[in-house]
Amino acid sequence: MTDLLVQNCTVLHIAEDRPEITILPHHDILVKGRRIQAVQPTGQADPSHFRSIIPADGLLAMPGLINTHAHVPMGIFRGLGEDVSIEKWFNEYMWPLESNLQPEDVYWGMLLGVAEMIRGGVTAVADHYFYTDEAARAVEKAGTRALLGWAMFASNGLEMIEQTGAFVKNWQGAAEGRIRTIMAPHAPYTCDDDFLRASVKKAGELGVGIHIHVAETMSQTEASLEKRGITPVQVLAQTGVLDVPTILAHVCGATPADIDLLAKHHAGIAHAPKTYLKLAMGTAPVLDFRAAGIPVGLATDGPVSNNTLDIWESLRLMAMTQKDHAGTPEVMTIPEALYIATRESARVYGQPDDLGAVEAGYLADIILIDLGGLHHQPVHRLPATLVYNMLASDVQTVIVNGEVIMRDRQLLTLDEGEIVAQVRQSMARLAQRNPDQRIQVYNP
Amino acid sequence: MTDLLVQNCTVLHIAEDRPEITILPHHDILVKGRRIQAVQPTGQADPSHFRSIIPADGLLAMPGLINTHAHVPMGIFRGLGEDVSIEKWFNEYMWPLESNLQPEDVYWGMLLGVAEMIRGGVTAVADHYFYTDEAARAVEKAGTRALLGWAMFASNGLEMIEQTGAFVKNWQGAAEGRIRTIMAPHAPYTCDDDFLRASVKKAGELGVGIHIHVAETMSQTEASLEKRGITPVQVLAQTGVLDVPTILAHVCGATPADIDLLAKHHAGIAHAPKTYLKLAMGTAPVLDFRAAGIPVGLATDGPVSNNTLDIWESLRLMAMTQKDHAGTPEVMTIPEALYIATRESARVYGQPDDLGAVEAGYLADIILIDLGGLHHQPVHRLPATLVYNMLASDVQTVIVNGEVIMRDRQLLTLDEGEIVAQVRQSMARLAQRNPDQRIQVYNP
Repeated sequence: MTDLLVQNCTVLHIAEDRPEITILPHHDILVKGRRIQAVQPTGQADPSHFRSIIPADGLLAMPGLINTHAHVPMGIFRGLGEDVSIEKWFNEYMWPLESNLQPEDVYWGMLLGVAEMIRGGVTAVADHYFYTDEAARAVEKAGTRALLGWAMFASNGLEMIEQTGAFVKNWQGAAEGRIRTIMAPHAPYTCDDDFLRASVKKAGELGVGIHIHVAETMSQTEASLEKRGITPVQVLAQTGVLDVPTILAHVCGATPADIDLLAKHHAGIAHAPKTYLKLAMGTAPVLDFRAAGIPVGLATDGPVSNNTLDIWESLRLMAMTQKDHAGTPEVMTIPEALYIATRESARVYGQPDDLGAVEAGYLADIILIDLGGLHHQPVHRLPATLVYNMLASDVQTVIVNGEVIMRDRQLLTLDEGEIVAQVRQSMARLAQRNPDQRIQVYNP
Repeated sequence: MTDLLVQNCTVLHIAEDRPEITILPHHDILVKGRRIQAVQPTGQADPSHFRSIIPADGLLAMPGLINTHAHVPMGIFRGLGEDVSIEKWFNEYMWPLESNLQPEDVYWGMLLGVAEMIRGGVTAVADHYFYTDEAARAVEKAGTRALLGWAMFASNGLEMIEQTGAFVKNWQGAAEGRIRTIMAPHAPYTCDDDFLRASVKKAGELGVGIHIHVAETMSQTEASLEKRGITPVQVLAQTGVLDVPTILAHVCGATPADIDLLAKHHAGIAHAPKTYLKLAMGTAPVLDFRAAGIPVGLATDGPVSNNTLDIWESLRLMAMTQKDHAGTPEVMTIPEALYIATRESARVYGQPDDLGAVEAGYLADIILIDLGGLHHQPVHRLPATLVYNMLASDVQTVIVNGEVIMRDRQLLTLDEGEIVAQVRQSMARLAQRNPDQRIQVYNP
């Protein structure tokens, strides 16, 4: 018996090594255990050989989306930091608000955000936050995939590296391999060189990578140049951070020399364009990163800057802001944008051979999309509608690791009503804002 | 008997003369005929006095959104002009494709787009396209509101002004006042001065305004300065276009002198930021327009550049691109963005005393929104979630002119299946592209 047959869908196939799209109409997807066994023209498989069948006539199948940088539990603070400068955003809003955070807030906030992501077809997230044990429990329950790092600042002391290292060790490979872990120093401007070096050392011991914010704006790069004579990216190079597999969030303030440096290392860049627009952080040079061979993945960032966890919006904004920034619509084409959303995001996430494709041998993280909505019709060109017309609510069914976790828009692993009720209970407490109790000070 | 009671909703109230938002929880909306009779705390009205009741516990009521510039029927060409320069977009894609256009394509295309807009809470559209009699029939059937102009080029000859003038006269005030009409010369670069003057004369005779594209990019402004020594906006001033009530589409290429000039006239600006990003047209100086007292309304433009008719996305993109362009997140705040989406869009549309508010005396164009989705929760700040978290699919119920036209996401006036089937039938014919048969040449 094979486990699952997704019957008669249209499969979006994207070449492994280049932005080339093929549409495969009337195909079946055969799933055995956690992996895709075959993708083949429909009618060849005998339905009686399958434990479970999903009829998918007229639906599009593509790989589950990957969110390469988020702070998912921040959804509990949604809407509380709007229309303010990045300095105020950190110093008067987020970091004071986060002094209210309790471990159970992270559990419910993570469930809330993971549920939102499932409903939008996002099956994996590289998350960077606090009380990450709770986040891991939430992911375990939800049935999705996550690469979790416990955020730390130098002010937490070097013992924090041991503590988050213990988290990394405890949860690596948990939940049938759905959970992976990573070391997560916050940023060069909140972690001194010794702290970064110690983080790298621990990452090396544990055989994991590092997920860190760097050069979020060009102002940060300028501040670093002024204070130390080197850029934030050079700080990472000098402290060894770039010698382990690394997810670098944002890098809007990359210099040409930084790009050369990144191209020589295992760095992947997480790109969260909605945050950059909303906080007026400038545009990350995605076209230059790509030209230098540096992988770029899509990301939402946290739901206070974003304000959702919608990767379709990130995809669309990446394509449009890169065109705008380059001054020509001929760059960041639809195939390239979809290549970034799938293959390249899987590479940044650290599983390029497992994720980002609906293809035999890959993990069975598959989403089924209904393009029948009026906002898609008529579909002259399917890839165009995926980039420019999608609503998260068009995602119908979600499969992760071979298990169906949303079917016809019904979540099968989580109780939405319970999650929302739990989060709402804490709203008044979470919204209290005392700037004297901020967890850090933003002064890059 | 009063006609309709919308019971126990939360009403979004926006002040008439400034971006100030008040949230009115537990309110009823009383509708008599086409207009709102009262908005009052729930529990005061006797339900037995109403012909019809909509229980709206937990739903948000706000004015139907207004799309101040579109080419709705272009949805039939969706996805056919991607990743190309604006010159190619016109000369090799849109204008050759539009040589395939038949009147019945406009009818079904308009129905398709109006249905999409209803589902997204857009109740009125200023549309600029061809075979507009067909568009008017579609709007009449759909139950929505439209301000329709038949697009014309100087190459059509002056007799086209008579012909489209006849359309204006025939349909003005039709469909219980839901349809209004306007003269629609295409742009200064496709209509010479005599043609513009004749259009103004006809508009004056008919007592209507003009809807026109102008200074779509700074390149167009530069080309005009080079050819004629004056900007496209100055061309409009000199030919009298600005002396009638005018909707100016785009104006990304406005100079400071243009803004001074526009401030002295009855010009409203239609702002379609997705098109500007996708076609790398630059950013329209919305903050400068607003500072000069020029009304700005939200728009989608046509679904080939956009590629949808989603005003929520226009709202969000306007707010974000203005922050990005200004280099600070402190501008284009949430109240200001919502003021533009409602009061100011109604002003640009030409009905500031009828539309854009849920308030006694205004026309009953009301949408009910469900903010219960996980992408909104928890709602710490309701106005923030309207700007940054909305999906078009969150709109539950739509009322226009006092009539319910969508209830719990079911369209009550249109047959979606029939519309999609009709449009699909013509796809192959519509997608044929012969650059020798373009309807115009783009050479501003």
